[in-house]
Amino acid sequence: MGIHEAVNAAQAAAIPLAAIEATCRNRALAAIAEALKTNVKAIAKANEEDLLKAEEAKLADPLRKRLRFDAARIAQVCDGIESLIQLADPIGKTLQATELDSDLELYQVTCPIGVIGVIFESRPDALVQISTLCLKSGNAVLLKGGSEAAQTNKILAQVIAQATESAGIPAGWIQLMETRQDVAEILSLDKAIDLIVPRGSNKFVQYIMNNTHIPVLGHADGICHVYVDQDADQEMALRIAVDSKCQYVAVCNAAETLLVHASIAQEFLPQLERALTTANVEIRGCTKTASMINCLPAQASDWSTEYLDTVLSIKIVNDLTEAIEHINTYGSGHTDSIVTSNQRTAQRFMNLVDAGNVFWNCSTRFSDGFRYGLGAEVGVSTHKIHARGPVGLDGLMIYKWKLIGKGHIVADYSTGEKCFSHAKLSRDCPLT
Amino acid sequence: MGIHEAVNAAQAAAIPLAAIEATCRNRALAAIAEALKTNVKAIAKANEEDLLKAEEAKLADPLRKRLRFDAARIAQVCDGIESLIQLADPIGKTLQATELDSDLELYQVTCPIGVIGVIFESRPDALVQISTLCLKSGNAVLLKGGSEAAQTNKILAQVIAQATESAGIPAGWIQLMETRQDVAEILSLDKAIDLIVPRGSNKFVQYIMNNTHIPVLGHADGICHVYVDQDADQEMALRIAVDSKCQYVAVCNAAETLLVHASIAQEFLPQLERALTTANVEIRGCTKTASMINCLPAQASDWSTEYLDTVLSIKIVNDLTEAIEHINTYGSGHTDSIVTSNQRTAQRFMNLVDAGNVFWNCSTRFSDGFRYGLGAEVGVSTHKIHARGPVGLDGLMIYKWKLIGKGHIVADYSTGEKCFSHAKLSRDCPLT
Repeated sequence: MGIHEAVNAAQAAAIPLAAIEATCRNRALAAIAEALKTNVKAIAKANEEDLLKAEEAKLADPLRKRLRFDAARIAQVCDGIESLIQLADPIGKTLQATELDSDLELYQVTCPIGVIGVIFESRPDALVQISTLCLKSGNAVLLKGGSEAAQTNKILAQVIAQATESAGIPAGWIQLMETRQDVAEILSLDKAIDLIVPRGSNKFVQYIMNNTHIPVLGHADGICHVYVDQDADQEMALRIAVDSKCQYVAVCNAAETLLVHASIAQEFLPQLERALTTANVEIRGCTKTASMINCLPAQASDWSTEYLDTVLSIKIVNDLTEAIEHINTYGSGHTDSIVTSNQRTAQRFMNLVDAGNVFWNCSTRFSDGFRYGLGAEVGVSTHKIHARGPVGLDGLMIYKWKLIGKGHIVADYSTGEKCFSHAKLSRDCPLT
Repeated sequence: MGIHEAVNAAQAAAIPLAAIEATCRNRALAAIAEALKTNVKAIAKANEEDLLKAEEAKLADPLRKRLRFDAARIAQVCDGIESLIQLADPIGKTLQATELDSDLELYQVTCPIGVIGVIFESRPDALVQISTLCLKSGNAVLLKGGSEAAQTNKILAQVIAQATESAGIPAGWIQLMETRQDVAEILSLDKAIDLIVPRGSNKFVQYIMNNTHIPVLGHADGICHVYVDQDADQEMALRIAVDSKCQYVAVCNAAETLLVHASIAQEFLPQLERALTTANVEIRGCTKTASMINCLPAQASDWSTEYLDTVLSIKIVNDLTEAIEHINTYGSGHTDSIVTSNQRTAQRFMNLVDAGNVFWNCSTRFSDGFRYGLGAEVGVSTHKIHARGPVGLDGLMIYKWKLIGKGHIVADYSTGEKCFSHAKLSRDCPLT
């Protein structure tokens, strides 16, 4: 099957899938977990092939570790599927109800978006998580994983397709894209694909955004800040700064720049320097910072660089306003945290920093779908419409307006014979 | 001020505007109404200039009528502003709250999108409605109205800017674009503009969508259907069909195609023919239709044509499934209505037709922000993310995740020292 046929099949499946009952979708989710366990040997064998190739290609150890998909990992993703089954059905929720006039009732009701294309990195776990999130939310999905995991992804997609088809889900709802060429081709299919979620390098996400008219949800940069205010508990600030920078440096929610209030810089920075030196973090400081601690001089480009590495840029700011302006100028709207004991300062920071995730007295590393309790995430969005921050089940939903009348026509209202009442109703749509 | 400076000014104003209290935004709305009334003469004078030019250019009567913006129209828009003031504040609503762990609380809180560009047709009322919706929702706005209303729009934007600035709203939040060149230039400013809402011809909306990477909310086509089911009350179907087609033909929610179940076509179509002939509607029918009533033969292209005129295409379908497939193939996802007395049939139609507005036993013409009771609308969306159908205040909002801790770091959770509780909270965010 070519990629165009695959997209057509997904689009055809999306319509009936949207109307499949929750019990059936949950049964299909259980069937996936069951099938993964049943096929553990075949999956492990496919995974071994990928691991062998990764070894031959001399892939770095951490990458090979993430690639491994064995019985333990299968047990883990099956736990995830079990949690997903327990979540409330996101389809058919009445968001608002209005009586427009006697016997003319308007309901705003949640429904799936339709066909979603997700391009993700090498972990095979991601394939299971994303496809099960899409199934729970009634969306058809086109998946493209990393080429390192090609064999594992192939068998996982097959197992999931078979298990769900047997459980009554319309065939074709899950499609695997296997080549970069496939991805390039789907970018022009804006009549068939409703949303693309690209996960990967900044450059790759930019490429997707610049080459499609399909709505894109995701993030290119993750330039996160920690701002240590004059009213900060400095010991707390130290722990949060180190965790935000060092807990896992290669991810989008790690801090890249620390801002510190001028009035405490002299006292705070030497402590921070010691902690960062212990953690082997290279410091790039503004001129004032460089006069207080040992560091490399920060260039203008440092403020807009996502290091994804053991490097932290530090800037001294004169006040909260300067901190907010710096973040709104150089940040990427991902995650920014303030450390302060002053609630009004925190409030101002959280309202004026234009980011999807704004934190008070905690590490930027918390911004993640699992930690947020969303079940799982299809991605993290730095866009400003539809969904922001970690995108879980809710981000895969949209709504329809359902209007139920008894022969009502507009002419009666334009002549003034009838009037709108617009009374809020507190009941659910009878037709879901 | 050039267009780039105007966009920068709007972006700069958007940040503090997002944090302005509801009382201040409502006071500014009242100030707009007051200023419109105070400046009624100056506004009428500017409007006279536009009307004179329209007369010289021999603009059609209905267009000139829509262009008129006199004391009566000002009173009307002021009523609209009064209703808007009464609506609940959309900013700072807590959508969900979760305790991630003891003293670590996550809140999903509504906030404005930021900077919104709206390009609209000639009615000057639209300028007031759109700008006041944006102000109520805390968004900065770039406006481009029809060139026919240039003088009226100019003075309206001035009056609104002055009135709101005096009321404490950050200067620059409202910007008027005056030329097509301005519009072309803002399309590349995706770092500064968060959303574009184009209203106008299919061709114009397509042009916008194809020439920007800024998210676009709107609709190109409005190919709406009425499906008359075998279980339809035929007298009701007749009224709904005539209203959907004829009540106002030049608008996006008018019906363009009528589908009728084969088992009642013989009885229903002659009645419909009489009603449509009385209303001077040209019928283009499928082969079967042509064997039953007088009509022109429909071409394949008719099913995907938005006539915006007194023309209706008619197709006989064998069952509900064929009707749904026709609509999902040729429709534009705008508004589709079924006439039937069978609730299960209606339910199936409403769940499987992939449109923003799906109606049962009422006219397609109801799909409109005012009729829905949204206060007003910035536009109608046929997109499938963010907002669908008429877009009012809610469609101008997004959210932030606010996380409040007491020094929490991720390392404690990755080592297993601490665990997430993910308990749902039923309280509002303390920091809004």
